Amino acid sequence: MRLKFSLFIAILFVATSTFAVEHPNLFLTAKAVQEIKASVGKYPAFDKSVDELKAIADKALAEKMDVPVPKDGGGGYTHEKHKSNYYAMNAAGIMFQISGNPKYAQFVKDMLLKYAALYPTLDLHPVIKSEARGKLFWQTLNDAVWLVHTANAYDCVYNFLAEKDRQLIEKNLFRPMAEFLSNGNESNYETFNKMHNHGTWALSAVGMIGYAMGDKDLVAKALYGSKKDKKSGFFRQLDMLFSPDGYYTEGPYYQRYAIWPFMTFAQVIQNQQPELNIFSYRDRILDKAVNTALQCAYNGEFFYLNDALYKTYQTQEIVYAVDIAYKNNPSNKQLLDIARQQNSCIVSGEGLVVAKAVAAEKIPAFELKPALLRDGAKGDEGGIAILRSGSGDNQSCLTFKATSHGLSHGHYDKLSMVFYDNGNCILPDYGAVRFLNIEPKDGGGYTKENHSWGSQTIAHNTVTVDGKSDFNGDIKISSKYHSEINYFSVDNPEIQVVSGVERNAYKDVLLNRTVALLTNKAFEFPLAIDIFRVKSDTVHQLDFPFYYNGQLISTDFTIHKNTTNLKPFGKKNGYQHLWLEATGKTDKPTANFTILNANRFYSIITLADTLTEFKLTRIGANDPNFNLRDTPCFLIRQPRVSNHTFVSVIEPHGLYDLTREVTEGYETNLSELTLIKDDEDFSAVKISLKKGQKFLFITANRDFDNSKTRTIIINNKTISFTGNYYFTDIQN
Amino acid sequence: MRLKFSLFIAILFVATSTFAVEHPNLFLTAKAVQEIKASVGKYPAFDKSVDELKAIADKALAEKMDVPVPKDGGGGYTHEKHKSNYYAMNAAGIMFQISGNPKYAQFVKDMLLKYAALYPTLDLHPVIKSEARGKLFWQTLNDAVWLVHTANAYDCVYNFLAEKDRQLIEKNLFRPMAEFLSNGNESNYETFNKMHNHGTWALSAVGMIGYAMGDKDLVAKALYGSKKDKKSGFFRQLDMLFSPDGYYTEGPYYQRYAIWPFMTFAQVIQNQQPELNIFSYRDRILDKAVNTALQCAYNGEFFYLNDALYKTYQTQEIVYAVDIAYKNNPSNKQLLDIARQQNSCIVSGEGLVVAKAVAAEKIPAFELKPALLRDGAKGDEGGIAILRSGSGDNQSCLTFKATSHGLSHGHYDKLSMVFYDNGNCILPDYGAVRFLNIEPKDGGGYTKENHSWGSQTIAHNTVTVDGKSDFNGDIKISSKYHSEINYFSVDNPEIQVVSGVERNAYKDVLLNRTVALLTNKAFEFPLAIDIFRVKSDTVHQLDFPFYYNGQLISTDFTIHKNTTNLKPFGKKNGYQHLWLEATGKTDKPTANFTILNANRFYSIITLADTLTEFKLTRIGANDPNFNLRDTPCFLIRQPRVSNHTFVSVIEPHGLYDLTREVTEGYETNLSELTLIKDDEDFSAVKISLKKGQKFLFITANRDFDNSKTRTIIINNKTISFTGNYYFTDIQN
Repeated sequence: MRLKFSLFIAILFVATSTFAVEHPNLFLTAKAVQEIKASVGKYPAFDKSVDELKAIADKALAEKMDVPVPKDGGGGYTHEKHKSNYYAMNAAGIMFQISGNPKYAQFVKDMLLKYAALYPTLDLHPVIKSEARGKLFWQTLNDAVWLVHTANAYDCVYNFLAEKDRQLIEKNLFRPMAEFLSNGNESNYETFNKMHNHGTWALSAVGMIGYAMGDKDLVAKALYGSKKDKKSGFFRQLDMLFSPDGYYTEGPYYQRYAIWPFMTFAQVIQNQQPELNIFSYRDRILDKAVNTALQCAYNGEFFYLNDALYKTYQTQEIVYAVDIAYKNNPSNKQLLDIARQQNSCIVSGEGLVVAKAVAAEKIPAFELKPALLRDGAKGDEGGIAILRSGSGDNQSCLTFKATSHGLSHGHYDKLSMVFYDNGNCILPDYGAVRFLNIEPKDGGGYTKENHSWGSQTIAHNTVTVDGKSDFNGDIKISSKYHSEINYFSVDNPEIQVVSGVERNAYKDVLLNRTVALLTNKAFEFPLAIDIFRVKSDTVHQLDFPFYYNGQLISTDFTIHKNTTNLKPFGKKNGYQHLWLEATGKTDKPTANFTILNANRFYSIITLADTLTEFKLTRIGANDPNFNLRDTPCFLIRQPRVSNHTFVSVIEPHGLYDLTREVTEGYETNLSELTLIKDDEDFSAVKISLKKGQKFLFITANRDFDNSKTRTIIINNKTISFTGNYYFTDIQN
Repeated sequence: MRLKFSLFIAILFVATSTFAVEHPNLFLTAKAVQEIKASVGKYPAFDKSVDELKAIADKALAEKMDVPVPKDGGGGYTHEKHKSNYYAMNAAGIMFQISGNPKYAQFVKDMLLKYAALYPTLDLHPVIKSEARGKLFWQTLNDAVWLVHTANAYDCVYNFLAEKDRQLIEKNLFRPMAEFLSNGNESNYETFNKMHNHGTWALSAVGMIGYAMGDKDLVAKALYGSKKDKKSGFFRQLDMLFSPDGYYTEGPYYQRYAIWPFMTFAQVIQNQQPELNIFSYRDRILDKAVNTALQCAYNGEFFYLNDALYKTYQTQEIVYAVDIAYKNNPSNKQLLDIARQQNSCIVSGEGLVVAKAVAAEKIPAFELKPALLRDGAKGDEGGIAILRSGSGDNQSCLTFKATSHGLSHGHYDKLSMVFYDNGNCILPDYGAVRFLNIEPKDGGGYTKENHSWGSQTIAHNTVTVDGKSDFNGDIKISSKYHSEINYFSVDNPEIQVVSGVERNAYKDVLLNRTVALLTNKAFEFPLAIDIFRVKSDTVHQLDFPFYYNGQLISTDFTIHKNTTNLKPFGKKNGYQHLWLEATGKTDKPTANFTILNANRFYSIITLADTLTEFKLTRIGANDPNFNLRDTPCFLIRQPRVSNHTFVSVIEPHGLYDLTREVTEGYETNLSELTLIKDDEDFSAVKISLKKGQKFLFITANRDFDNSKTRTIIINNKTISFTGNYYFTDIQN
């Protein structure tokens, strides 16, 4: 018995080996507190943020405190209450430091004691929707987010608390919670050690409460994995989850989300263990991650790729990312432009540095630039290409996705394309089917249509073969492969080109797509050329949709609309969610489809042959719970082909000004589109404008080499060029 | 021969009896020109407007002049060219006056000579879409607009032109055009003398060119009608087309449009014949018309009633209306708030006065107020009631339409309601089915769905009886009748109520609707109560739709959705355009239907019985040319009733903040809705909130009298109140 007890003490000692720490020094530092006190009234954006934080704290102090027994899913009362509780504790903790008013600390103390009383009584959350059920929330993820915020609050009131209260709170709440998050069950252990944003939250939570409690062991686990062998943990995540370009494999929406714990925990590490030089790690990968997140946006709105919802630069996670990134790299002054737009700061040393700089510095505009963001830890798993022409609201932007699957939030969207123009998304990606935090909509989680529709290939602007999704919709297989970028060139800002290939999505079918964003004084606006080659030894049905935002204005082919009876376009793989509104065929060599979006017209001009079928669809079939948006689509079908090359031009044109009642150029400026050569080596497309100008675009289809000189004979003329593509105006 | 010639001269003399006039003095005056020259660089909004006008002129001067033979409909090349030509002449004429540079006058001269050469060769326009075909344009209306602008240009360059050029232009162009517009054929004669906005344009054009040429006869016809008997003409239009409240019977969209020639021509009359005191006429009816136009808007966007498209305060016609109204009534300083928002002025004395005032004055905010706008020349043909609570972006606004038919642009929408909140239209009116100036869409005119859908009763938020539109959709019959306002009260801004009745839309069916917009500290936001009584001696099917903008979140009744096959809801009277998406019934005494719009939830809570059927529809069936927007609808059907009272509450609630990821109050705050009394005298509705508060709303159903004391016994309790309605919180 005595032996056992000694052993228990020894184990306990090891498990809780502590180191002396200052408070506050977790995220908010004592030095920052002094600077913040000295800055009152000097920086409006900072003052506003303090006021907002104070309002959160004061509102919470004025209300009856409630720490309810967990019951509801996302959006429900107990869910939202535990969420507002951690925001309230975080706000009150910081306000205690800034104001010195003990009422704030008392509030945090009281609430922590309530949680310390509740937590030991809790089993797993009663809502069973996640494989990783939390205790306070329906998924462990939210428990981790709770702890990230609460660790800050604890740090802020640490010195206010009596030792016995600290012991009670740590023993009944923080240590069991840290244990639960890192090792509570198999699923949590896996998550904690997984290369995934849920893991980042878990280890940030555990690491932060570890630092706050002075618990070296918890910190070491957070930094180096449960086994402290560096095969997982924060550093390993920095190695694995970001590509060398700072791209996060789950896509922009989750990059925005993941950046929050990454940057927050990094700042904590910087405060606590500056010797680790965390912001310099891996060639400043965190800087790159922030920059890449910001670049994955149009007009301040993040790209809707993979599972994505509407998110902007205004979100608090991007405020955190920008402020922390700037503090640790003040040479990146463009970040201040975003901070100025946000008009909000973290109430911390980082936020104050930014507020001061915004007031003092001459701020360069934040530039959204064309970029290739390589995917994969080594940058060798394809990537996302972003083509951009122009700047500001009026920028044209085309995204091209040729990445790896993107973990559990990835879609079967190989070589898919999205087109923005004139401040709007013209050819969209659906993103996720989810009503975040709306309880009546599947508890705020992903709806079943996220799988049956949102992630399927037919939901994306790319080719679906034989009515099946890439890899037959099998994530395990899809995760083994990735597309490849053939080449990417934006050296000439007026001729931006990306080409990619997908060899594995369909058995014995090769997909090769080249898209170019071309700016030329002969064009009204930048236009896109899209060459999609499908190669196979066997015959397939190819469906190539262009989802569009806008209203159909005209087509140059006859449409037969199903005016009195709508049926789904298919039975599975996403097709069951499309109403077939109309069909069409053409006897011309091209088809023209023109829509209106805001004050501009857009034409899709595409090659057609006698077999080509056009389908006009609208999302919404087999949607019993009204979960889907009803985006319309112009779909090109080749019913039976082995080798086929889709060639399309997407042309913005004209003006529709309802205020001044002026209409200009409602018809395409193109008179002709022809594929004048198409073989294993090259595809060559000729565009003729009604005003007479003619242009030739050639892409190499193999042997990609930026320095290679190519020779191609077209109509008995020899054309030579160096590199992978060629674009010129021609005489005939 | 000699005699004949003399007679011809004599006739010519009579027909063109002239009076000496200064130039410029039509719209732009010589005095204003001097003031404008002296103001350069002083008023940014005015300078900007001059720059914009100069840019229009300079662009036109730089281009090859083209006065094409008319060929195309709205949006087509020749249509847009003749339009840009009149804008160009107007701009160049003004720029000639301001700059003194003769190149501008030369441009106007050259173009006028081209038109003078072209016009005599023209027959009616080749596009046959209008009963009133023009010569330059497909409809006479546009010819009139052309002449309004060109008359200004002519006045500006009058003194620059040689006498022989003036004679040529007047003889070959202006006089024949004035003759054509006023008397060219039966249709034009009718239009010129008609009480209709097309008539306003026609007589303004004729009157303005009359003044410009010094032709008293043309002016007299414009002012007093073709027969100069005052039975038509401008003054008669001022008497007949506006109600005493300044409401224009065609509705806000056309009021906005008509206000342009009304105000422009009035200013011309003021300049030319100040003794007529035109702006004082009929108790300053033009002031009222401008103010009423501005009041028929939400967030600067005009109400979508009758045939209406998207239009805002930013349109040039509202710039004209505001500037001219302010110049002639500078005590109305709220107009300056609109002018400031417009940041644009007329380049004229009126615009300059406004620009100076905006720079100098302390400007009160323009207030959108609740109002009853009576319809009919005498104000006794019903009206539009506007209920509003709050101000700015966040205002709640409910419109209630109980007017006369509204001429050719009216809809069969008796007692229809529209609801705005939080900056958005929540329960919309479809407005017009038209793609203005888009040639491929029915030449830019109204599409056939404007009649088959947009104007039908089922397209509006009101009751359709037996699947037929009001007056069986017969405009001749509908135009004989009007709804009546029972009472309207906004004395207490927290209890705004309007009640109206329609006795004639359906044989032997009386429709009586009372809506209240209620603000109370117990409500999260102002909510609406809607009591719709239908009385008949015979059995009818009643359909009561609520069109909504937003996404369905939840219902408290089971929905059976047509997930694999959509069919139209009906065969005619607009029903053929609705896809029947889902049906539902409830066994509870109320049904709750909750949607999300922007960051707020909205619940419609409505009484139900065992026969009540719910239909969820979406616009789009029988629409072969993709002309319709696909707005969804929650429709309440009572299949077989003689007397029925629909009672609904429309409640905004909660918060959906995707940026901060906060969701609050996604469920209605109501626990109960009951109709506790409903007879010929009174309807009484009780609302219970989940938090416990209870409210009673009573409306009188007859003997409307604001000073009458009423006594009503409910549940053995006697309630007394004075007036037509009663609203209070109750204990049980």
